[in-house]
Amino acid sequence: MDITAQQLLARRDQAMGAGTPLFYNEPLHLVRGEGVHVYDPAGRCYVDMYNNVPCVGHANPAVVEAMARAQSTLNVHSRYLHEGIVELCEKLVGLHAGKPTAGPIESVIVSCSGTEAIEVALRMARFATGKQGIICTDGTYHGNSELVSKLSRLSLGNNAMPDVRSFPFPETYRPIQPGLSEAELTEAYLARLQAAIDGLNASGEGFACLILCSILANEGLPDIPAGFMEKASALVHKAGGLVISDEVQAGYCRAGRWWGYEVSGLRPDIVVTGKPMGNGLPLAATAASKALVDNFRARTHYFNTFASSPLQAAVGSAVIDYIERENLAENVATVGAYLKAALKQRAGAAPAIGDVRGVGLFIGVEMIRPDGSADVETTVDVVNRLKDKGFLMSNAGIFRNVVKIRPPLVFRREHADAFLAAWDETIGELPN
Amino acid sequence: MDITAQQLLARRDQAMGAGTPLFYNEPLHLVRGEGVHVYDPAGRCYVDMYNNVPCVGHANPAVVEAMARAQSTLNVHSRYLHEGIVELCEKLVGLHAGKPTAGPIESVIVSCSGTEAIEVALRMARFATGKQGIICTDGTYHGNSELVSKLSRLSLGNNAMPDVRSFPFPETYRPIQPGLSEAELTEAYLARLQAAIDGLNASGEGFACLILCSILANEGLPDIPAGFMEKASALVHKAGGLVISDEVQAGYCRAGRWWGYEVSGLRPDIVVTGKPMGNGLPLAATAASKALVDNFRARTHYFNTFASSPLQAAVGSAVIDYIERENLAENVATVGAYLKAALKQRAGAAPAIGDVRGVGLFIGVEMIRPDGSADVETTVDVVNRLKDKGFLMSNAGIFRNVVKIRPPLVFRREHADAFLAAWDETIGELPN
Repeated sequence: MDITAQQLLARRDQAMGAGTPLFYNEPLHLVRGEGVHVYDPAGRCYVDMYNNVPCVGHANPAVVEAMARAQSTLNVHSRYLHEGIVELCEKLVGLHAGKPTAGPIESVIVSCSGTEAIEVALRMARFATGKQGIICTDGTYHGNSELVSKLSRLSLGNNAMPDVRSFPFPETYRPIQPGLSEAELTEAYLARLQAAIDGLNASGEGFACLILCSILANEGLPDIPAGFMEKASALVHKAGGLVISDEVQAGYCRAGRWWGYEVSGLRPDIVVTGKPMGNGLPLAATAASKALVDNFRARTHYFNTFASSPLQAAVGSAVIDYIERENLAENVATVGAYLKAALKQRAGAAPAIGDVRGVGLFIGVEMIRPDGSADVETTVDVVNRLKDKGFLMSNAGIFRNVVKIRPPLVFRREHADAFLAAWDETIGELPN
Repeated sequence: MDITAQQLLARRDQAMGAGTPLFYNEPLHLVRGEGVHVYDPAGRCYVDMYNNVPCVGHANPAVVEAMARAQSTLNVHSRYLHEGIVELCEKLVGLHAGKPTAGPIESVIVSCSGTEAIEVALRMARFATGKQGIICTDGTYHGNSELVSKLSRLSLGNNAMPDVRSFPFPETYRPIQPGLSEAELTEAYLARLQAAIDGLNASGEGFACLILCSILANEGLPDIPAGFMEKASALVHKAGGLVISDEVQAGYCRAGRWWGYEVSGLRPDIVVTGKPMGNGLPLAATAASKALVDNFRARTHYFNTFASSPLQAAVGSAVIDYIERENLAENVATVGAYLKAALKQRAGAAPAIGDVRGVGLFIGVEMIRPDGSADVETTVDVVNRLKDKGFLMSNAGIFRNVVKIRPPLVFRREHADAFLAAWDETIGELPN
């Protein structure tokens, strides 16, 4: 770290508090970005392989133009009529048309962050069912408010939350029970989900909803036992609950289709979107049937000062239009499949690589020790070495031993090839 | 409403849900804004006397420029080093220097909405005290999440919330007990606050914090019995609790000084800001001592994807700089005092006007029936008539019978004079 960065870090600790999260052993100081590239003060260029928020690229001119035009024209709250925000909600609804959701997706509540949108979804499910109980996985994270942080794996350890229960997230790599066929494994996880539902019903809280990231991103992008998502959805509906699909990471073509639920088979009643929606502008949404939305509005008179503004509308529409116009879903599917196959191919020769998995441009590489246990040190080492070579990513998963590759949607094959060269070099540098 | 507006309203009900809040008997369709003015599709101009979010004026060129420049340069989350966000936090801290807070205001947690910032403040107080109990007034609103909506007067009716208690908001206009001197009235409200604290302690929840809007905006901007805010703060601190000042409406020169607590005498440990911070960009903050902030971060590893971004930094700094450069605090104090005095002068001749009160450019006019009871119908009538004459405001207060006047900070004496002419005309039109 140069002196400027050291001084900046000291000022940051004072002005923002110690423990404000930072990436990398030596924090990275950034000053500029363009497309999939970001730059430090010395002009050094990095390929961004982490950021899903600037989904259509850093400093995307179409988004900048929409933002500047909206802000210089009109930017008011939503208690006046404005066409832009209606159009954005109609576009969002349209993106679910004909897709395999549980109920119709007809109406949208716009907010400013994934946390706010998850709050709306959870409260919507509680109002609709008259029950309080929420079920999530034991390896998840959905946001940072009082209610939503109850769903974080960081806080679930104490088991002292009557209204939230977790079940083990479904995966084939470290299965809940060894020696089962995949079909049996699916049933084993379903049984744990059913037990959580039964527990809530027995406790008097009752069962309101299951909330899942449709591709289990924070759980480390596991390969999910076949049929689990469809069967879990059916089980929830049979129990009178609602399914919430957290598409904050999975949605917006991240998985090669518009929605993660299209890929994984989850059948949501309520869909939550966030991160990529505004290419950096705070923008999130909760979408559901009109009946669910109307009921939520009647119960809460929900109003959100900054949400549903002409600014959010213009930027949100520009992002959707850009993704459609540039056919980024196809780019994600093609480049993602290419990159995953290339990494899989290399895995055999590197014993530290336990697994390569993921969907679209969201790939996880699990790093393990010779005994198969999670190797966080090597994961962190790989991430930092790749940073030094000009490629930015992070580590994730419940053991933090999964290299998390999640570039902007405009990441192309040429970027993948450059990365693969750096990847080979990095793996070659690891101690045997 | 013209056909376009009717069609838009129908589309809105479908895409956003029925009950999405709207102002006025005939909703207003807006397409453009500039300074204190907004325009409908026919080009009709309205003076905006409601909106505090575009505090430095609709479409303020300095803000638009900062926004476009930041978004076209770099806009990433906060796990990289970036100087802009450190500067914004330092500026915010600087705005409290030498002011009568309870503890030092040293560090800032940035978020995207008032609701998020209030969540941070409440959880910060709970972590610091190890207690759960929150006290608010019986006429307040602080936000829309599960936790924060417990503090809304709309939901407090059921009294079924062990961790939240309310006390009657202090006021001289409809005092809690008739026939008392102002000093006695202050003590009467303090006794109710003490009873709420005692109740929380007796219940086992314990007492974490008192949260107040420093000028009691949602309560209807009451004249507060002398000394109440200082004495209430002392009482809270004596009981081991923290004082949270909600400056979402009161701050940013709204009351003629940077902070509402400077005017009312509240002595906060934690300060929450929101609405005007980004002139329309979602941006909010929770500021406190470094010890309080560090403890919160250690307990939560708080991270907010859209918050503390270069975009928020650039826009947030541009707003503060503009307010300082144009000396808007002085404009607010001068024009606000002029407008309030003019309205007070007129009150005597109009029996429907029960009270004129407020601070800076935040004025409330209480409308009453001959028996002194709240006259919501006349209030709504006045607000709609003024809209038809080209002046936008709303009604507020616990009985919704207070005309709420809260224009952008760039509202000048010439706008006040034009409004006063329309006000006189409107009052003259009211049935006797």
